Amino acid sequence: MTTAFDPTLDPQLQSWVASANTDTTDFPIQNLPFGRFRQPGDAAWRIGVAVGDQVLDLRAAGLIDHGDMNRLMQAAPAERRALRTALSEGLREGSAQQAAYARALLAQADVALGLPCEVGDYTDFYVGIHHAMEVGRQFRPENPLLPNYAWVPIGYHGRSSTLQASGSAFHRPMGQIKPAQASQPELAPCARLDIELELGLFIGQPNAQGEPVPIDEAEQHLFGITLFNDWSARDIQAWEYQPLGPFLGKNFASTVSPWMVTLEALAPFRRPFARPVGDPEPLPYLDSADNRAHGAFDIQMEVVLQTARMAQDGYAGDVIAESNFAEAAYWTAAQLVTHHTVNGCALRAGDLFGSGTLSGATKAQCGSLLELTTGGKYPITLSNGEQRGFLEDGDTVILRGWCAREGARRIGFGECRGTVLPVFTKG
Amino acid sequence: MTTAFDPTLDPQLQSWVASANTDTTDFPIQNLPFGRFRQPGDAAWRIGVAVGDQVLDLRAAGLIDHGDMNRLMQAAPAERRALRTALSEGLREGSAQQAAYARALLAQADVALGLPCEVGDYTDFYVGIHHAMEVGRQFRPENPLLPNYAWVPIGYHGRSSTLQASGSAFHRPMGQIKPAQASQPELAPCARLDIELELGLFIGQPNAQGEPVPIDEAEQHLFGITLFNDWSARDIQAWEYQPLGPFLGKNFASTVSPWMVTLEALAPFRRPFARPVGDPEPLPYLDSADNRAHGAFDIQMEVVLQTARMAQDGYAGDVIAESNFAEAAYWTAAQLVTHHTVNGCALRAGDLFGSGTLSGATKAQCGSLLELTTGGKYPITLSNGEQRGFLEDGDTVILRGWCAREGARRIGFGECRGTVLPVFTKG
Repeated sequence: MTTAFDPTLDPQLQSWVASANTDTTDFPIQNLPFGRFRQPGDAAWRIGVAVGDQVLDLRAAGLIDHGDMNRLMQAAPAERRALRTALSEGLREGSAQQAAYARALLAQADVALGLPCEVGDYTDFYVGIHHAMEVGRQFRPENPLLPNYAWVPIGYHGRSSTLQASGSAFHRPMGQIKPAQASQPELAPCARLDIELELGLFIGQPNAQGEPVPIDEAEQHLFGITLFNDWSARDIQAWEYQPLGPFLGKNFASTVSPWMVTLEALAPFRRPFARPVGDPEPLPYLDSADNRAHGAFDIQMEVVLQTARMAQDGYAGDVIAESNFAEAAYWTAAQLVTHHTVNGCALRAGDLFGSGTLSGATKAQCGSLLELTTGGKYPITLSNGEQRGFLEDGDTVILRGWCAREGARRIGFGECRGTVLPVFTKG
Repeated sequence: MTTAFDPTLDPQLQSWVASANTDTTDFPIQNLPFGRFRQPGDAAWRIGVAVGDQVLDLRAAGLIDHGDMNRLMQAAPAERRALRTALSEGLREGSAQQAAYARALLAQADVALGLPCEVGDYTDFYVGIHHAMEVGRQFRPENPLLPNYAWVPIGYHGRSSTLQASGSAFHRPMGQIKPAQASQPELAPCARLDIELELGLFIGQPNAQGEPVPIDEAEQHLFGITLFNDWSARDIQAWEYQPLGPFLGKNFASTVSPWMVTLEALAPFRRPFARPVGDPEPLPYLDSADNRAHGAFDIQMEVVLQTARMAQDGYAGDVIAESNFAEAAYWTAAQLVTHHTVNGCALRAGDLFGSGTLSGATKAQCGSLLELTTGGKYPITLSNGEQRGFLEDGDTVILRGWCAREGARRIGFGECRGTVLPVFTKG
């Protein structure tokens, strides 16, 4: 990362887009996240940048000459920085481009927001150590945290075909489920449907197959970060996951928020990275002075649950958990890139890393119902008196995230929203 | 599958392409497999069909008006069948199209053959029960075959970005390796580099997210079959794979043969599918009369190892294993499609299923060195006196496959060839 002063991060900067100057917006002029949108009737996605409650169409504004987000994400760091600077200068108060850019603005409320790019490969990591501990306790009581956890940034491959844009719904999955007492499994609707509070890390610059990415070059390959809900069917997962890992318990749907917040926008919210006392240091290929000094990201997150009854009552939902990326994660984003490529694995523009569930150390910081309700044993009671062990049909889950600190403008991630539909029935 | 007589399978059919009429060709007129090729200097791939030692350029022959294999693969069964009929009629002796098609023929030796399509998601299954038993014995001596194996077609997600066309080489991977006696892992070159003899099943018609594919519709979603070598780093895999499955031990490279042999061409080589006596029957969603009657494919395969010294000596290599899909597999292709979608998971045209390692019951039928040498303990001795526990730098592995039976023309899969390079060094 650069440590030079970046004028696009000046907290005093104001935009001529009035909604970008409020205290509550996720998208002040210091943020400038990238996403894809289209208007009703459009076939193709366009590239946009969120500013206040508006989206700037980058092609209409004359800033790019194509609509291919994955191509934009591959740009070299200097080129990315030049685009960010142009955006910041064009959107700030008193800009000479105001009239031209104003014609390229649309209200976010009037467009559909899609997945932020085409995702080639999606990898799900497992960096939340509190989550790994608690899941381990429930799935393998004799052996909760395996000996490789402190050494290997554990991850597995996920599936891209079922990634969904925020605002989508999905059917409760069917699957093989074997109750503990039963002698054989049966095909049944998932009865332990869960959320996973994650962040999505998007790759920009690719590496060539065969060529590992050293730790101090790793962040050059990261384009931006979104919210990510990796819906999970715990009963299907429990029966299928040995010996080759999660499969149908995970790949029915995952929801991605629309806006990729760039590493440039996150620069004021970096934190030192350190291991808990007594834990081994990472192997040398996963260690560097820069990674120790500011490898972590101080991103605050929350999970909101809105049941069907709450929606009918016009109530926005209860916050059921709050957590923080820097506090929950045992590995940094840079370490994930370096580990993923140490064997020569190729990363491509648009590839997605899920962070893994980012639970904190306390009950109020649990990023899954599995943890929050101890596997459904102790259901939570919501503000309207309803109870939940796991998700019910009609439930909507909204993830939110933001960064805030003294001396910097607060930036947000928008929202990641998904709704559970009943089991699919033909016809 | 159709049971009506298909005139394109008539074993008496001869082609005006003389090389398609020899006894030894993989590509008689009864085969007509699809692949992608380009000539030196071309940027884009073109769609071709192999016939003898030639490739027919489908666009140049006027059979299609695009070069997008994934689009072709999505065609409805009737449309696919019409294209196959047109190809068969145009390439057979006495065809009125001979002159026109002859202008669209190129020698396979003069073109580059690529991956047969763009692969979106790649799933690796584990249908080889003898392989699962032996790997289980080595990785989990106390618990070789887990109780879910007889019920769940076990699979996990792989990575698409490192799939390679036949003829490619890859660097020996580095990775975290922990010797059994060591107190901690180290970063080191893989010392237990292995092959996996698999078949690649390619999806044609997609299913909508949320909508399971019933077992008797499953084969409509399969376009064709290739050979597939899923190179594996056993030492990296052993340390990383718990609890979420194989990751860097697998995703550095996998090699795919160029020609997708269609299900139409394989119709004469279907076999009944049955469970070993005493094993439970599949759950109803994975069972049907059609699947029992002819769910299996009688595909013969072999693994050839050519060391660097053999190559220098102009020797083509030793056959180190022979196996058969129908005998090795515990699940059918149709069961894999149905299981993969039972939770609503979406399959897209071009998605790839690896079958898993297809070892038979005997040593001579082992599809991996892990099995063939019992984890390197009993190295094999090659015909020139060299020994191998696992692969060495400079080794080339060639997979071959074919179908043959009385009353049908023998068809082949071409070859799947890959070479091990030394560990990558910068500069």
